[in-house]
Amino acid sequence: MSTPTERASNWLSAFASALARNDAAGAAALFDTESHWRDLVAFSWNLKTVDGRDAIAAMLKGTLDSTKPTNWKLDGEASEKDGITDAWFTFETVTARGRGHVRLKGDKAWTLLTTAQELKGFEEKKGRNRWRGTEHGVHKVRKNWLELKTEEEAALGYSKQPYVLIIGGGQGGIALGARLKRLGVPTIIVEKNERPGDSWRKRYKSLCLHDPVWYDHLPYLPFPDDWPVFSPKDKIGDWLESYVKIMELNYWTKSACKSAQYDPAKKEWTVEVLRDGKPVTLRPKQLVLATGQAGVPNMPDYPGMKDFKGTQRHSSQHPGGEDYTGRKCVVVGSNNSAHDIAADLWENGADVTMVQRSSTHVSRSESLMEVTTYPLWGEEALEKGITTEKADLIAASIPYKLLGEFQKPLYAEIKRRDADFYERLKKAGFMLDFGDDESGLFMKYVRRGSGYYIDVGASELICNGSIKLKQGKIERITPAGLKFADGSELPADLIVYATGYGSMNGWAAQLISKEVADKVGKCWGLGSDTTKDPGPWEGELRNMWKPTQQEGLWFHGGNLHQSRHYSQFLSLQLKARMEGLPTPVYGLQPVHHLS
Amino acid sequence: MSTPTERASNWLSAFASALARNDAAGAAALFDTESHWRDLVAFSWNLKTVDGRDAIAAMLKGTLDSTKPTNWKLDGEASEKDGITDAWFTFETVTARGRGHVRLKGDKAWTLLTTAQELKGFEEKKGRNRWRGTEHGVHKVRKNWLELKTEEEAALGYSKQPYVLIIGGGQGGIALGARLKRLGVPTIIVEKNERPGDSWRKRYKSLCLHDPVWYDHLPYLPFPDDWPVFSPKDKIGDWLESYVKIMELNYWTKSACKSAQYDPAKKEWTVEVLRDGKPVTLRPKQLVLATGQAGVPNMPDYPGMKDFKGTQRHSSQHPGGEDYTGRKCVVVGSNNSAHDIAADLWENGADVTMVQRSSTHVSRSESLMEVTTYPLWGEEALEKGITTEKADLIAASIPYKLLGEFQKPLYAEIKRRDADFYERLKKAGFMLDFGDDESGLFMKYVRRGSGYYIDVGASELICNGSIKLKQGKIERITPAGLKFADGSELPADLIVYATGYGSMNGWAAQLISKEVADKVGKCWGLGSDTTKDPGPWEGELRNMWKPTQQEGLWFHGGNLHQSRHYSQFLSLQLKARMEGLPTPVYGLQPVHHLS
Repeated sequence: MSTPTERASNWLSAFASALARNDAAGAAALFDTESHWRDLVAFSWNLKTVDGRDAIAAMLKGTLDSTKPTNWKLDGEASEKDGITDAWFTFETVTARGRGHVRLKGDKAWTLLTTAQELKGFEEKKGRNRWRGTEHGVHKVRKNWLELKTEEEAALGYSKQPYVLIIGGGQGGIALGARLKRLGVPTIIVEKNERPGDSWRKRYKSLCLHDPVWYDHLPYLPFPDDWPVFSPKDKIGDWLESYVKIMELNYWTKSACKSAQYDPAKKEWTVEVLRDGKPVTLRPKQLVLATGQAGVPNMPDYPGMKDFKGTQRHSSQHPGGEDYTGRKCVVVGSNNSAHDIAADLWENGADVTMVQRSSTHVSRSESLMEVTTYPLWGEEALEKGITTEKADLIAASIPYKLLGEFQKPLYAEIKRRDADFYERLKKAGFMLDFGDDESGLFMKYVRRGSGYYIDVGASELICNGSIKLKQGKIERITPAGLKFADGSELPADLIVYATGYGSMNGWAAQLISKEVADKVGKCWGLGSDTTKDPGPWEGELRNMWKPTQQEGLWFHGGNLHQSRHYSQFLSLQLKARMEGLPTPVYGLQPVHHLS
Repeated sequence: MSTPTERASNWLSAFASALARNDAAGAAALFDTESHWRDLVAFSWNLKTVDGRDAIAAMLKGTLDSTKPTNWKLDGEASEKDGITDAWFTFETVTARGRGHVRLKGDKAWTLLTTAQELKGFEEKKGRNRWRGTEHGVHKVRKNWLELKTEEEAALGYSKQPYVLIIGGGQGGIALGARLKRLGVPTIIVEKNERPGDSWRKRYKSLCLHDPVWYDHLPYLPFPDDWPVFSPKDKIGDWLESYVKIMELNYWTKSACKSAQYDPAKKEWTVEVLRDGKPVTLRPKQLVLATGQAGVPNMPDYPGMKDFKGTQRHSSQHPGGEDYTGRKCVVVGSNNSAHDIAADLWENGADVTMVQRSSTHVSRSESLMEVTTYPLWGEEALEKGITTEKADLIAASIPYKLLGEFQKPLYAEIKRRDADFYERLKKAGFMLDFGDDESGLFMKYVRRGSGYYIDVGASELICNGSIKLKQGKIERITPAGLKFADGSELPADLIVYATGYGSMNGWAAQLISKEVADKVGKCWGLGSDTTKDPGPWEGELRNMWKPTQQEGLWFHGGNLHQSRHYSQFLSLQLKARMEGLPTPVYGLQPVHHLS
């Protein structure tokens, strides 16, 4: 009987040999019939998951010549649980050093993860290889750090063009900017607000992050160990601002991008930016839209809206409930923003009704943390040596095809531990679901980016009737409120449309053209053929952090975890292009949906 | 033959038993004839080192009743090298949890370190015990983080008094402020400059830290792993500014402390502060002078100074050499500042002469790092699991009495590896020493805080004659320059007096009174009876980070390592007093020298 490490080692040797002799079929034969290979930039210069031996053989055939992988080595001891052997390894390609993970069923691979970690010859200057800071010895007319930095800031965007332009300076743009800075990629981040972090600060007063701190670290500079579990919005705003300074990002505040056009001959964008009121033309080679995973706000178009006498706005425009004490407020929608805004209005003494149009998943924040994230991102995990980076890779090692199955038991557990809570919520009339296939919140997030509320308190207000619940189809908006298909009416001084957001390619339509937006197609979602995530199956999130059908155009975003983790792979793709390394993209996804 | 762990375990059990039965003599008998016990706040509520069995027995007798130490446990495996067994342990007292280290010769203790790590019931809220950030659930009229922070900032110093007032917002004040913040001690830091970090920014252009990055971390938030080895001054200034924000310190900029008086009846200070031009009276219980280890600038008093026609200033007032291209500049002194300023003037094209009045130690920065700090604070140490905190404790485990002996072989190594360099320096006429007893730079630093240059390039300029060297006694300053006792003259457009600083109690004289300054006496130094460090032997640095003869008055300062490490013990002393824990000070040092 072999040990897990022996089994993993045997598998890895066999795999390495097959690859060394360019035997894609032989390598694929080492996989189980049901098997999945997820590659993040190491083989495919893409984020790509392929399922089953044939597709694995095809991806190997398509990538072996250009990557020539070698030097496969187990990293640490393998382990076994429930018949699955679990092992980490490292490897190299022509251009990169990689890290990977394999799960074996018997002696066949069930899941394989391969990731590029750094580009050879273009490693980050850190640890032993960090910059000295000073050239010891003395030099006439030398420039010091501040002078060089000031010069660089003055030149970039004017006498010197950035290689990358990032539109949007939230957590996504900032995390990517930090990685590109380390890789020496000249980058400008354009942000409309006055200060980094303002997109958090400007939201409603009681907002705190819904994800716990261990899940939220930015790259390179983890939060101090007394950082609150759920960061208040202004505190996270201040952190982002300090982070931008510490990382020395070229971050343009009060700057809006007006238009962008790609010249395929020059392989260059022309981007018109208004920087603090002054027009600047930028000519980056790469354009990254990091304007929020959410896309353009979806404002509904009900008959009669223009005659409404009160105030109506999209949730993204709602500043907080301070002015609505004693007023009648209606929140249309029942996802995160709808709940948060309804609770905030109630806290401010408003009379609040939530209009629930379709069933919604709710998980209590505590339970989510304890059951879903804490085992990987939390104090116990850290004590076991599972660093943030390791946790990110463990999470990445589960292909999306299997992720639902991995998630179901977690939500069964949540359902059990919070049975009372769910009972009361249903009793209050709330239409509750756990997803089309009971796979819970995170699957809804990656499939459709909507359909759930992470409960930080509003559900209790619904249970006890403090926030009133109204269901049904809105027929029209009257001057005094809402009228429903069943004939009922709801008077309102304020209507907040928490009706969500479109796909991120809506930003491309606004900024570049409808044509380019359609060319790249819908962003986000997996093609799972569940509600709001039409097939066919994609294997990875559409268009996110990887090449799109528009050369030089990239989408970056998501929660803090995703911003941290995927910025690594996006930054490597951009750096490789800047350095002129060959980056043949395997399996560039076709477009199936426009939005 | 017992293992090191068995020996350490046996010793610790015997020591614990003796203490448990209050047998000070029995415990002292477990020490070697030549032995040293260093206690940082755990037993003595002081920083105290005692030497030999009798003194150890006396300190035990004086502290056992009030501390009642228990729960002694080895921490990890002991090790042995050159006949010395080395072990870590933890323990508790009535009020604190502690960590310690012992070195055994045979079965007797040679050195013992005991440190308080946290106060029971007043632990820092971190890790698993961190603040949640939000009270989940919703609450009418709740205040959010920003509102509470804004209120606190507005109240502190006006409607609410700080418990601690720290004068001086450099690295010392900032590190201590961060620790007190975590411990919930209301604290204000008063800083004369406009921004945190300005005391670095305002210095000469080419300045970089002379200590390497691994030695320089502040508490709680280590530098990112690409931080340069030797931080440029503006970069470290920016870091301090970000750190103050991230740690949410109550940091008053543009604020000067005008006077301070202690009321022994009320046990309270009355401190007059000018905050951005407006007078504020503060009434803290504890006053910490963190105005720089260097003390008040020593301006020499040569005859004729008032008639000098050029510019003359103390090194602390010298902004940089930009205005002195082609001018004749004389730097009086040959320590760090003198070298740095001379090199900076040379870089700017000045004609520079250094006046060396007495012999000076020089170590090359590279060699210092590689030979002295890197084994404890560096990448290899980190890879071996020696964290910054562990490195600090290892360093602390060597009593000052032995430190010179530990240091000598390091400087012998430096002397060997840099033999050529030293040869050339002597050939250029430089008067070189390695300390009275060949123990090198760090001993000079802790004994007298002067007498050395960490070479970052200026020595080469002296070797090759770019910086001219002049030795001898200055007789007077003439209108045109300097006149020496040997009759020679040196013309000068600029004279910079890099003539050092007085003792830190000079700040107390300026701020409080000559009487209080004399009452607390000289700060810094060990009483080693070497040049500029007169005896008797003190065992610890005079007055630093520990109780002084003036109730409620404390001195804090030193390099970044000391600011980080000793701020922990000072913060625990202050917190204990705020909480009304008994803090009987053992062996408060008598005053032997006024300055």
